[in-house]
Amino acid sequence: MADLTPDHLAALEQQAIELPSWAFGNSGTRFKVFPTAGTPRDPYEKIADAAQVHRFTALAPSVALHIPWDMVDSFDDLRRHAEDLGVRLGTINSNTFQDDDYKFGALTHEDDRIRRKAIDHHLACIDVMDATGSRDLKIWLAEGSNYPGQNDLRARQDRLADSLRTIYDRLGDHQRLVLEYKFFEPSFYHTDVPDWGTSYAQVAALGDKAMVCLDTGHHAPGTNIEFIVMQLLRLGKLGSFDFNSRFYADDDLIVGAADPFQLFRIIDQVIRGGGLNNPDVAFMLDQCHNLEAKIPGQIRSVLNVQEMTARALLIDREALAAAQTANDVLAANAVLMDAFYTDVRPALAEWRESRGLPADPMAAYAASGYQQQIEADRVGGVQAGWGA
Amino acid sequence: MADLTPDHLAALEQQAIELPSWAFGNSGTRFKVFPTAGTPRDPYEKIADAAQVHRFTALAPSVALHIPWDMVDSFDDLRRHAEDLGVRLGTINSNTFQDDDYKFGALTHEDDRIRRKAIDHHLACIDVMDATGSRDLKIWLAEGSNYPGQNDLRARQDRLADSLRTIYDRLGDHQRLVLEYKFFEPSFYHTDVPDWGTSYAQVAALGDKAMVCLDTGHHAPGTNIEFIVMQLLRLGKLGSFDFNSRFYADDDLIVGAADPFQLFRIIDQVIRGGGLNNPDVAFMLDQCHNLEAKIPGQIRSVLNVQEMTARALLIDREALAAAQTANDVLAANAVLMDAFYTDVRPALAEWRESRGLPADPMAAYAASGYQQQIEADRVGGVQAGWGA
Amino acid sequence: MADLTPDHLAALEQQAIELPSWAFGNSGTRFKVFPTAGTPRDPYEKIADAAQVHRFTALAPSVALHIPWDMVDSFDDLRRHAEDLGVRLGTINSNTFQDDDYKFGALTHEDDRIRRKAIDHHLACIDVMDATGSRDLKIWLAEGSNYPGQNDLRARQDRLADSLRTIYDRLGDHQRLVLEYKFFEPSFYHTDVPDWGTSYAQVAALGDKAMVCLDTGHHAPGTNIEFIVMQLLRLGKLGSFDFNSRFYADDDLIVGAADPFQLFRIIDQVIRGGGLNNPDVAFMLDQCHNLEAKIPGQIRSVLNVQEMTARALLIDREALAAAQTANDVLAANAVLMDAFYTDVRPALAEWRESRGLPADPMAAYAASGYQQQIEADRVGGVQAGWGA
Amino acid sequence: MADLTPDHLAALEQQAIELPSWAFGNSGTRFKVFPTAGTPRDPYEKIADAAQVHRFTALAPSVALHIPWDMVDSFDDLRRHAEDLGVRLGTINSNTFQDDDYKFGALTHEDDRIRRKAIDHHLACIDVMDATGSRDLKIWLAEGSNYPGQNDLRARQDRLADSLRTIYDRLGDHQRLVLEYKFFEPSFYHTDVPDWGTSYAQVAALGDKAMVCLDTGHHAPGTNIEFIVMQLLRLGKLGSFDFNSRFYADDDLIVGAADPFQLFRIIDQVIRGGGLNNPDVAFMLDQCHNLEAKIPGQIRSVLNVQEMTARALLIDREALAAAQTANDVLAANAVLMDAFYTDVRPALAEWRESRGLPADPMAAYAASGYQQQIEADRVGGVQAGWGA
Repeated sequence: MADLTPDHLAALEQQAIELPSWAFGNSGTRFKVFPTAGTPRDPYEKIADAAQVHRFTALAPSVALHIPWDMVDSFDDLRRHAEDLGVRLGTINSNTFQDDDYKFGALTHEDDRIRRKAIDHHLACIDVMDATGSRDLKIWLAEGSNYPGQNDLRARQDRLADSLRTIYDRLGDHQRLVLEYKFFEPSFYHTDVPDWGTSYAQVAALGDKAMVCLDTGHHAPGTNIEFIVMQLLRLGKLGSFDFNSRFYADDDLIVGAADPFQLFRIIDQVIRGGGLNNPDVAFMLDQCHNLEAKIPGQIRSVLNVQEMTARALLIDREALAAAQTANDVLAANAVLMDAFYTDVRPALAEWRESRGLPADPMAAYAASGYQQQIEADRVGGVQAGWGA
Repeated sequence: MADLTPDHLAALEQQAIELPSWAFGNSGTRFKVFPTAGTPRDPYEKIADAAQVHRFTALAPSVALHIPWDMVDSFDDLRRHAEDLGVRLGTINSNTFQDDDYKFGALTHEDDRIRRKAIDHHLACIDVMDATGSRDLKIWLAEGSNYPGQNDLRARQDRLADSLRTIYDRLGDHQRLVLEYKFFEPSFYHTDVPDWGTSYAQVAALGDKAMVCLDTGHHAPGTNIEFIVMQLLRLGKLGSFDFNSRFYADDDLIVGAADPFQLFRIIDQVIRGGGLNNPDVAFMLDQCHNLEAKIPGQIRSVLNVQEMTARALLIDREALAAAQTANDVLAANAVLMDAFYTDVRPALAEWRESRGLPADPMAAYAASGYQQQIEADRVGGVQAGWGA
Repeated sequence: MADLTPDHLAALEQQAIELPSWAFGNSGTRFKVFPTAGTPRDPYEKIADAAQVHRFTALAPSVALHIPWDMVDSFDDLRRHAEDLGVRLGTINSNTFQDDDYKFGALTHEDDRIRRKAIDHHLACIDVMDATGSRDLKIWLAEGSNYPGQNDLRARQDRLADSLRTIYDRLGDHQRLVLEYKFFEPSFYHTDVPDWGTSYAQVAALGDKAMVCLDTGHHAPGTNIEFIVMQLLRLGKLGSFDFNSRFYADDDLIVGAADPFQLFRIIDQVIRGGGLNNPDVAFMLDQCHNLEAKIPGQIRSVLNVQEMTARALLIDREALAAAQTANDVLAANAVLMDAFYTDVRPALAEWRESRGLPADPMAAYAASGYQQQIEADRVGGVQAGWGA
Repeated sequence: MADLTPDHLAALEQQAIELPSWAFGNSGTRFKVFPTAGTPRDPYEKIADAAQVHRFTALAPSVALHIPWDMVDSFDDLRRHAEDLGVRLGTINSNTFQDDDYKFGALTHEDDRIRRKAIDHHLACIDVMDATGSRDLKIWLAEGSNYPGQNDLRARQDRLADSLRTIYDRLGDHQRLVLEYKFFEPSFYHTDVPDWGTSYAQVAALGDKAMVCLDTGHHAPGTNIEFIVMQLLRLGKLGSFDFNSRFYADDDLIVGAADPFQLFRIIDQVIRGGGLNNPDVAFMLDQCHNLEAKIPGQIRSVLNVQEMTARALLIDREALAAAQTANDVLAANAVLMDAFYTDVRPALAEWRESRGLPADPMAAYAASGYQQQIEADRVGGVQAGWGA
């Protein structure tokens, strides 16, 4: 069985992975969104579902909200609801891609009225943060163009800098702005923040409270993502992860599902760069459970991160350094693979039990009856999805 | 000015590009579908819009339908409507991706009931073909899985073969089945017909009336598409093109917009392989005008194909063959580039006028008042989109 | 510990992976080939090194040769040399990329003299096969062009078919022709056999003794390789694997190094399709040890295949089928992942010892003194590489 | 004919594209380097060939050198040789990939001795710059690793920063350090400067005399390169271009050959961002003429850049801005395409003649007899290639 030391277990015990409220709603592709029984109808039900993930894993103490999808009359009330269920409200995500006004841009829009509207939306999100006690405002910029010539790339970048400055200046002392980048989609020719370099250049210009968000699905084919993790940690600008996995584009599959070894290498770099259990580096999921059950999909996801963290903790760093210094390529690689191939699952199961948690959270959830209960209870109303 | 010979012009005069009815409805991404004024509410209005494209270009004499999006009470009536507007009904496209039953497959489904339902849908499509006089049944298989292990790839392939056989056997003497392949989307792990090899193997097993459909946006990054065009023509199995263009995934942008030189090379291979104005090889568009105006988007598209065909016709094939035989790489490439860089637009404008067509179809459409008219007329009702 | 049953162990005991003689010579990139002490100077020394891999693993009973790199005066003598060392001569690989005559093609060349020379080279390879008792002639076609227009794609394909026919007709009753495909390199615009579809179409036209070779590094980014494995097995045309791994292009890294989960999925499909220990499906390595030690690199490689085969054998196929039938996506995926994450290494080590093999072949080789011996002995002469 | 205004022609007259000395030597792939008659044997002959490109085009007044490939006893003498032939010596390129010591790194190497050796090589390159009067030291870092774990990514990045600092501090007042990035090759797992973000972060830390070099072939599939051009110009850090083109990896084909429209979009952004004829932004070629004739290959290349610059200058920027402001996607795109599709070649030919240059530089070179002369003269000796 894997030799997880007390230090390893202490690190694992600290681990916290934020869940996205929208993972509990319906999602799909441009071709079809398949509805499923039991899907939440409002933010309260989403948080109730998220709390189940935490209940069975102790890994997911907070829930990210998406505004306006998660707008409620009283965020105080929603916060209490979360706390009653054992979780707290986390990152606030803005949304500037679903209003007809934003067809051609938002924070980059040439029309000052629309750009101001988008800025104001972000200021309103900071108001929400004040109410929820959230630290991070996460901005994913769904802006870009579909055809060469459609827009002036440079002017948009300058307007973006100006918009971000206005938003940044409104942040409270303990609040942060985290800027996500994405290779493509929904735009097909150019995206205004397409790569880590652009996000870095923008947030570096803003100041210490602006950071980069790395979504593991938002890169060109073949990109060495752990290198970017290393670099952003080195530059002090890795603010958060959006974990998921992909085979092709931004597939938003369960983290670790498409390439478990890549996830291992990413977490290895997180540990190497001091990013594990570092409050500056938030771990979050950003996934779509188009076909699979949503709550178990999230449980599987946080377990994948936990298991892979355990494997990465097992890397014999002394042996690795020695092999690296000797330029013994096979030996160095073997140290890494040895940790990766170690089956940490029995040890983790035992440890979970020792903490009063189910050894097998997936089975425990399935046996809990929660799914049957919500399928019976949540009849009528409009199921939550990306439109609501 | 480009030296378009009478032979070239005769070839261009024969050229026909089928329009997809769904290009006139709203489309978008999983994030947002932006509605636009004047969007058709039913198949009749879609055909009316398609007829405008033909009116200004004489390039688009037929319209492909999508079932059930384009179901009507009487296809006889719809056919007369089309003919009254100067166009005819073309390829029938089946749809097995929008019914809740098809969440886990259709023609490949393990459950015989659902698979039979999907087969029956295709038989119903052939009934429609009998009514519309259409020759081609185009099958795009949106089937696959999102996670390794989710499905048995091999059993699905065998069931697919069985389903296609049943459908094929129902075809009339002059009807064809055209099987499209697609690299990925909406499935993210495996797709049941992901490449030309799979489509070819399946249709070769069926018989002479089964052909491959090549959608120019459905390939892995870096794929040499003109090579596939060459190969399918060589194997006698290129049934049709779905033209569009892409930078990343299946972007469905205007044909020729992302990489005009690629379109040129594709048409060069079409000509080389005897596929131009060959009834066996249907030219169709399959595009989404998410941001740009739809009717002008289609006009621009057929003009792009026409202009690129004119350039490809200008290739000096004797000089090309001589340079190839001499292995004079630069000279051979120069022959190709010389044709590509020739500005055929003035000659085409003049030729259009000589045929009673507008020299500049884009300007003529804009000046026609049609857009203003449909925006004024089409108020109320539900705009057509992929859901209807 | 992993529950490897007697059936599993019997299957593993049968497993044989052919080694490429050229993996023991120097290799590199266009920028630099780094020499290493102890590198073989001739085919005899290459085979001696290959025999070491088999000695410590019992996994690699045969060695593939590359003609003319491995030309010797007497193949009878080389065969005896191999047999004395406990291995046998395997697949014969032709080479039509290093003669100045082949700058613009070989089996596809427009010049009949050069094409005939290339055909004759293959006939000479079959003569070698007759002498060595080899079954398979493997043809990797390094042919293509760098610029659009440089060559006539269609005519080349037709000439290829003709050349292959001549070669095929010379095969003995128990010999096979195996045609490899490759996405790109050394050609940068078009490759004459770029994908499995082309290889399949060519070998299907030849007959039963012609098969496809799947090199795991020869695909476009994002390609689902296990799907192709499934399809070729289904079509009865999977003749052999060239195993290696890649992050970007044809990196020729150690099999399983870049994406172990992909290797697992590939072997899963091999088992599913009846390809494991099936004489029709040869397992071979095709790798370059540019930086790492060569003999241990090959030992590591065959162990990777063995370990991954053990994991794939552990898949609970009954549970998998049940979850698939129920469309329980998470459960089906979990069955696969459960096998993948099982640490089979201790059980395999124990099993190796029970068969009189070293528990840890890497350590046993390192302790054997062989490396020191060849570094001391092989002084002077010209180290083997791709040029010799 | 294209309406090139006096302003356009003045801009074109200023255009200067630096040639790489190594383009005149032999090159190839890891599989084969094909030699060609007339290939230079030393730097003097390379410069003589480069001068031919300038003679027929007036576009290539300078030649970049590669150290140690172009080491000579007296750079004063080489400089005079160049000046006598009407060209001058340009950028100095360092080389830290061909010494056995650099197998595992150079400026990033863990071993201080080797790292110091690599730094000293760069200081020696600056000595050469002092002798040649060159402004730019171009550093392409061929460093990285092939296997996960092989090296400590973070420590290498820190050592790189330290090495670059030492080199930077040695620069004269009017000298610059230009840091190239590359996606992959010759390393296959990680590259120490893999993307523009890394190069930017490193040079921004150094100071004003450090800039980024953008090689158009060094990006992931699908990357929007003109966006990076825009961003680097915006950040004031675009130091130079290495022009070439690619279909797959770093193919080093003739600029504009693979995707002419991409070249057009890149130059459009250069103009938009003030980078045309801006001394801060050097235009260079970095290509390999593996199959085609080398001197004509370079002539074709500079003509491609010139012709595409002429097209980009023709963009009606007022109309473009108006269409962009109106969010008229099709109109904005049409402005761009209108310029792209304009055949500027006749106007450029006429203008060349008016300046005493051949209308058709390719034909003029072919007729000049230079090629026949060097093929006759350059007999014996060792042809230049990447090894010398």
